[in-house]
Amino acid sequence: MADRTIALASDHAGYDLKLELACLVADLGFEPLDLGTHDRESVDYPDFGAELGRAVADGRAALGVLVCGTGIGISIAANRNPAVRAALCHDTTTARLARQHNDANVLSIGARTTGPETAKDILRAFLETPFEGGRHARRVDKLATC
Amino acid sequence: MADRTIALASDHAGYDLKLELACLVADLGFEPLDLGTHDRESVDYPDFGAELGRAVADGRAALGVLVCGTGIGISIAANRNPAVRAALCHDTTTARLARQHNDANVLSIGARTTGPETAKDILRAFLETPFEGGRHARRVDKLATC
Repeated sequence: MADRTIALASDHAGYDLKLELACLVADLGFEPLDLGTHDRESVDYPDFGAELGRAVADGRAALGVLVCGTGIGISIAANRNPAVRAALCHDTTTARLARQHNDANVLSIGARTTGPETAKDILRAFLETPFEGGRHARRVDKLATC
Repeated sequence: MADRTIALASDHAGYDLKLELACLVADLGFEPLDLGTHDRESVDYPDFGAELGRAVADGRAALGVLVCGTGIGISIAANRNPAVRAALCHDTTTARLARQHNDANVLSIGARTTGPETAKDILRAFLETPFEGGRHARRVDKLATC
């Protein structure tokens, strides 16, 4: 069921953290969909950010999680897709605000800049926080067309 | 001269910090181009992120600086433009890596999550750090087409 499916993708730098986050996704009762990369061989982050963006856009997954060294490059790639709102988060506060205000449907984390326990707390906050709607909805709608 | 011009844009939440960063841009010998917003009245961040993206894409500015509450929403808007590589940075390490590895041409900062002195250090690091090229160039090229 797509609305319980969480897609995950990373480059080589994010591979180990992606595996940890996929376990947490399953522990929290969601269905992880691992779009790669599948080992530590060097790959190009845009390929994986774009593929995860397509998975969210076409409904294969309700939400997505991206990991690269800083979370920056892979989130830029995903945000090329007008259906994606990928939020680079470095703490639980920004994860909460990304859901409340931006209705973010993709979480991006930097494996070289955010430790694994912090990353897991960020993912929990992201999955637990609903969108606030209201005045934020008009702005979110604009992100689909700008 | 566009290659010394740094465009800045923000929503109302980022207005005060944008003014401080525009002063620093001038102090460092660059030419600030302020694309608004121009007061603290509530506005929609996608309008300003998209406009700054156009300014960088069409050569009015060499680089851009974005500020909203978290830096998340306004950077999503800018990254809809395939010529933009907007990096949300929360410290000097990520600012340096965004330039070295992603050739980021837009810096995004959250005014409600990053203090003004930290923000100024981030901007200095962003402006002082060159792109490393090499293996990173292929990945940056892919960001223009994904």
